Amino acid sequence: MVDSGRLWRRIFELGEIGRQEVGGVTRLSFTEEERAVKDRVASYMEEANLSVREDAVGNLVGRREGRNPDAPVVLVGSHLDSVYNGGGFDGPLGVLAGVEVAHTLEKAGVETDHPVEVVAFTDEEGARFSFGMIGSRALAGRLTPEDLTHEDENGVSIAEAMRGYGLNPERVGEAARPQGSVAAYVELHIEQGRILENEGLAVGVVTGIAAPVWRDFVLTGGTGHAGTTPMGLRHDPLAAAAEVMGIVEAEAAGTGTSVGTVGRLSLRPGGINIIPGRVEFSLDLRDIDEEVRDRVEERILERAEEVCHRRGVGMETELLQRMAPASCSEMVRGAVEEACRAIGVRPYALASGAAHDAMQLVDLCPMGMAFVASRDGVSHSPDEWSSKEDCEAGAEVLYRVILDLAKGA
Amino acid sequence: MVDSGRLWRRIFELGEIGRQEVGGVTRLSFTEEERAVKDRVASYMEEANLSVREDAVGNLVGRREGRNPDAPVVLVGSHLDSVYNGGGFDGPLGVLAGVEVAHTLEKAGVETDHPVEVVAFTDEEGARFSFGMIGSRALAGRLTPEDLTHEDENGVSIAEAMRGYGLNPERVGEAARPQGSVAAYVELHIEQGRILENEGLAVGVVTGIAAPVWRDFVLTGGTGHAGTTPMGLRHDPLAAAAEVMGIVEAEAAGTGTSVGTVGRLSLRPGGINIIPGRVEFSLDLRDIDEEVRDRVEERILERAEEVCHRRGVGMETELLQRMAPASCSEMVRGAVEEACRAIGVRPYALASGAAHDAMQLVDLCPMGMAFVASRDGVSHSPDEWSSKEDCEAGAEVLYRVILDLAKGA
Repeated sequence: MVDSGRLWRRIFELGEIGRQEVGGVTRLSFTEEERAVKDRVASYMEEANLSVREDAVGNLVGRREGRNPDAPVVLVGSHLDSVYNGGGFDGPLGVLAGVEVAHTLEKAGVETDHPVEVVAFTDEEGARFSFGMIGSRALAGRLTPEDLTHEDENGVSIAEAMRGYGLNPERVGEAARPQGSVAAYVELHIEQGRILENEGLAVGVVTGIAAPVWRDFVLTGGTGHAGTTPMGLRHDPLAAAAEVMGIVEAEAAGTGTSVGTVGRLSLRPGGINIIPGRVEFSLDLRDIDEEVRDRVEERILERAEEVCHRRGVGMETELLQRMAPASCSEMVRGAVEEACRAIGVRPYALASGAAHDAMQLVDLCPMGMAFVASRDGVSHSPDEWSSKEDCEAGAEVLYRVILDLAKGA
Repeated sequence: MVDSGRLWRRIFELGEIGRQEVGGVTRLSFTEEERAVKDRVASYMEEANLSVREDAVGNLVGRREGRNPDAPVVLVGSHLDSVYNGGGFDGPLGVLAGVEVAHTLEKAGVETDHPVEVVAFTDEEGARFSFGMIGSRALAGRLTPEDLTHEDENGVSIAEAMRGYGLNPERVGEAARPQGSVAAYVELHIEQGRILENEGLAVGVVTGIAAPVWRDFVLTGGTGHAGTTPMGLRHDPLAAAAEVMGIVEAEAAGTGTSVGTVGRLSLRPGGINIIPGRVEFSLDLRDIDEEVRDRVEERILERAEEVCHRRGVGMETELLQRMAPASCSEMVRGAVEEACRAIGVRPYALASGAAHDAMQLVDLCPMGMAFVASRDGVSHSPDEWSSKEDCEAGAEVLYRVILDLAKGA
């Protein structure tokens, strides 16, 4: 039904915008690259006969009217920005598949009850300001003036960057959609993990979106000479950190659903023959069930304190971020399952470990996602890849879901 | 007898060279700081009327002739380099006490049969090249051309660093002392442990020197998104390293005498939400019993390979250094005991957990050491401290030992 050749070709056309010599694409928000990529997608939307606009936060929106122009809209989309040296699928697949669905509806002359809008959200990744999902937060009415004070590495705030891009940061509130105005939001995205690949499936049904707790730990002990300090007299913060890392792993694995990661670790002073005096490490802990995640966090903190107390090592921990996981709505999830069956793919439920724009919309409307298999689970890398067949299957699923939710005939 | 005020003052004068704003002193080999500290000590040697030279590896030597200029020389000394952010006593005490002994002999007009040479060895700590005791190895004729290929963190080899410092690495062989040319070597050093402090003693008699095995480990796994990679699909090299660190600690502690330390650890890529792909860490393992130490090493390697194999993590390990423990000679040990008695300190025998230049000379000449008590056992730290009284007692012991070994009257 959908034109998978066109979809595939456009993925690579967008991949030329912001392409880096060292590999991958870099498209940060409120830059020339973002302007170029949104202009290109706007032209695709116009080809699909959508009416195109950009809202107050720069979200690009292409609208196809329904029989009832006052009916709540069905939103479909994703984002066009990237991390530094990212891949060509993370984001663009969902936007281009949305455009493709609208184009297919148009070409087939399908009428829907609800209007359908394809959206390309501004800055999902947060690569520029270490603060992401700007467009979807704004659309959900969650973006605060304080959020706009986040700065990039040159000290430019989001508000300043918006102004430079021709947007008025004082008017971002106008991007917020009123409660009841959105019938549903659906997003097609690459999995960025290995689960679908291991299952041999092209597409999966997302149950919910995990959200991280981010913490920093600082463990302090007594630095000392590696040769002259008997094992029993040590207060080695790295030995304590090693034990805590074992606890992180065991507690996260114990739930069967949580993931816990220590991605950063540094120590001082750092000599081969010196017992470290100070170790700093990060914790990223996620689950789609907030209660489960927070219980794991509590256990880790409790047991880490026991470890440090027993070892005579000082422990401080700082909460960097605590986000709420979001469950996908039964309605959207059911529509995705049905669409999978329709194209002959066994409906397979999986959680999203990564954050997505969809999670920002959880209180605005029923939302849900479908995943397309990622080769080797690789993402945020030039090696990111999903096959043409799997992308096509994802677009076919998306088509059926939109038809279902927008009540087309 | 010795001028303890001058000794004490000079310890602090040297402590100004390479002083760090964040605390402690950093004096790496073949740097401006090393040049400055050796120049300062050369001036002290000249004040003591010693004839001063530097040998082919940069060892600073101040010589006082004996009655018989052809008699084998009595060597006394230590080193002037430091670890990163080290203390002011580790090394300088022994060199300055040696200068003080020579100065006192000179002032008192004491003649000795043997010439006495005070030596400040080049790079004992190994902080720059992860390869220490360069000067004492060279003096003992043990420094190989291969040793000079060790590189610092900027990829500069010892040979290159020597050239930059005005030394010719092809001529280091000239620093070697012929067999029979050295009557004895004596070194005064801080204990860097808590034993003498616990015993309430200013000075102790060293029986032997434990020696380290140094290794580097590189663990490699699959980097990945912290949110999208289930615990069961991970090959996290940091989680593996944490387990290996637990094994190092348990195996070393299990012997009751060995010590095992991971003092350096770094990882890549180092993002809070990225599973590391590569972890590198060091191992320092010591015992005064070589067999015990090597058995512990073997167990650690065996178990580390099991851990990595089970986790699907690659492991490579490189031997950086394997040194043999060294016993102090009966002759020097006896002289130190006698000197302790002479100043009213109960002779107390203890082993050295730390490596010292003295161990390199074990096959060249009779060697031995005396320790001065360390407050709280702290060393390799700005908090390193020995009291003025204990340093004075150490210098008095050293004076008597030199007088004894060099046969002064």
